[in-house]
Amino acid sequence: MAGPAFEKIAIMGAGLIGSSIAHAAREAGAARHVVLYDSSEDVRTRAAGLGLGDVVGTPAEACQDAGAIFLCVPVGAIAETTQAIAPHMSRGAILTDVGSVKESALSAMQDHCPAGVHLIPGHPIAGTEKSGPEAGFATLFRNAWHILTPLPAQEETYNSAVDRLAGFWEMLGAKVEIMDAARHDRVLAITSHLPHLIAYNIVSTAYDMESVGEGEVVKYSAGGFRDFTRIAASDPVMWRDVFLNNKDAVLETLGRFSEDLAALQRAIRWGDGDTLMREFERARGIRKAIIEAGQDSAVANFGRNSDETET
Amino acid sequence: MAGPAFEKIAIMGAGLIGSSIAHAAREAGAARHVVLYDSSEDVRTRAAGLGLGDVVGTPAEACQDAGAIFLCVPVGAIAETTQAIAPHMSRGAILTDVGSVKESALSAMQDHCPAGVHLIPGHPIAGTEKSGPEAGFATLFRNAWHILTPLPAQEETYNSAVDRLAGFWEMLGAKVEIMDAARHDRVLAITSHLPHLIAYNIVSTAYDMESVGEGEVVKYSAGGFRDFTRIAASDPVMWRDVFLNNKDAVLETLGRFSEDLAALQRAIRWGDGDTLMREFERARGIRKAIIEAGQDSAVANFGRNSDETET
Repeated sequence: MAGPAFEKIAIMGAGLIGSSIAHAAREAGAARHVVLYDSSEDVRTRAAGLGLGDVVGTPAEACQDAGAIFLCVPVGAIAETTQAIAPHMSRGAILTDVGSVKESALSAMQDHCPAGVHLIPGHPIAGTEKSGPEAGFATLFRNAWHILTPLPAQEETYNSAVDRLAGFWEMLGAKVEIMDAARHDRVLAITSHLPHLIAYNIVSTAYDMESVGEGEVVKYSAGGFRDFTRIAASDPVMWRDVFLNNKDAVLETLGRFSEDLAALQRAIRWGDGDTLMREFERARGIRKAIIEAGQDSAVANFGRNSDETET
Repeated sequence: MAGPAFEKIAIMGAGLIGSSIAHAAREAGAARHVVLYDSSEDVRTRAAGLGLGDVVGTPAEACQDAGAIFLCVPVGAIAETTQAIAPHMSRGAILTDVGSVKESALSAMQDHCPAGVHLIPGHPIAGTEKSGPEAGFATLFRNAWHILTPLPAQEETYNSAVDRLAGFWEMLGAKVEIMDAARHDRVLAITSHLPHLIAYNIVSTAYDMESVGEGEVVKYSAGGFRDFTRIAASDPVMWRDVFLNNKDAVLETLGRFSEDLAALQRAIRWGDGDTLMREFERARGIRKAIIEAGQDSAVANFGRNSDETET
């Protein structure tokens, strides 16, 4: 068994991801000392009650002597959080985040990150639709991808900091992937951001259909609709920030989606069953690829606990 | 324990739903004699191997003396199947179906159903994304809604046939609901048909995004996309027929969806975070209603077995 990757880590933001890092790091022995801070006093109190680690009252206490600082806040709060902790980070410390958009997260951190701190943006491809410190659990990252988007062409101490951070995530059970931030944002626009936008939208459309009372939408939701409502239950602040901060890639992807949808709409209107069949067969093929690649629920984690924990 | 609802039932079509009815009816003792027919010889052979009941080689053998005949074929095949069995149905028998669109299913059956046979369209709100006789299982309908759309204002023997069919489904564990066919089609357009169309479409869009290799879409599908691919793995023929046969309600619902999506697109383009928040918060509310109504996965069945059986 290797020793801990870090003597002390600071987790800024004790929501689903922050509290899961705390649980997982303690269980794996990946950090000797886990300290959490949240800007909400209510969340701090709840986190303290869960025994996630040392919950402290100021960013300064959290970051002092921490080998790695994890920003687990919505993308829109990264800039101000970095600014708040900037005076308290040690030279040689790692500053990372878990934001779903990497170019703007990087830029928000860069604006305030002091020299001598290793800035290494990151994004765990794991989550559930739940929010808050109570939602976290130790196995959230197990077998999930963790994408790091390090700065290009850095000196050796930076590269070894990347290795150390990757080692930490591997101790938590994640598979680490290195990727360019811009590419990350384009890939995630289709694999995550657009699906969430679509899910929010269809739920909203259903809500408004006065010809179908809300009671019936709920009652017969097992026909497919229910699966969308789970995704659409995700944290609204987090997702607002994703769409505001990955605007170009999301709009480009959404444009393609709308074009394709118009073609299906036309096929339905004109009774063109061959076009419908062709598109539906193709969609089936990609599902098969996901199962064959082991990317189905046995491996990846989105919503993994929802059946067990939802009440 | 009550006796069987029917001495003999005939199941026309041994796919996911047909084979699940056979499993469930035998397990519940809801029919003394379960006979299956499928137009595909290959499916008949597989169904016989699964011990689902007596698999016979002609529609005539299946329907002779059957108290209830279940058409478990895609909506587009209901007319010809009804035509094929019309000479073989007994006076007083019940003819029902499991199609996802009820107005056109009713009309297809009415065109060929002989006098003296009680025509009672039906639709179980249950299913998985799998197809074929091997996909069926006895608990598929348990706690799921089963919608019957009987003809209006019939004589007493018809009404008692409806009661008998409802009793059969209740023995299989379903909760029976009576509804007007047109209303069914409007409700299901939003709770089932549109969600499937959207899922097929987003999977198709992802497939085409040459800027993101297919490998990466699969690899990072846990971010939300994967949930759509499961729905989009559903039987293409069945769904083609749904969209061709519920055209008006689907196009109306799709029109609203596209309007709403355009509003979200505009909010993203203009950085209007308040609009995004408002819509996302609303979507969260309807999820809560579904959980509170017990319509989450503990009760309803779509995709219920996918984690256990998918390989």
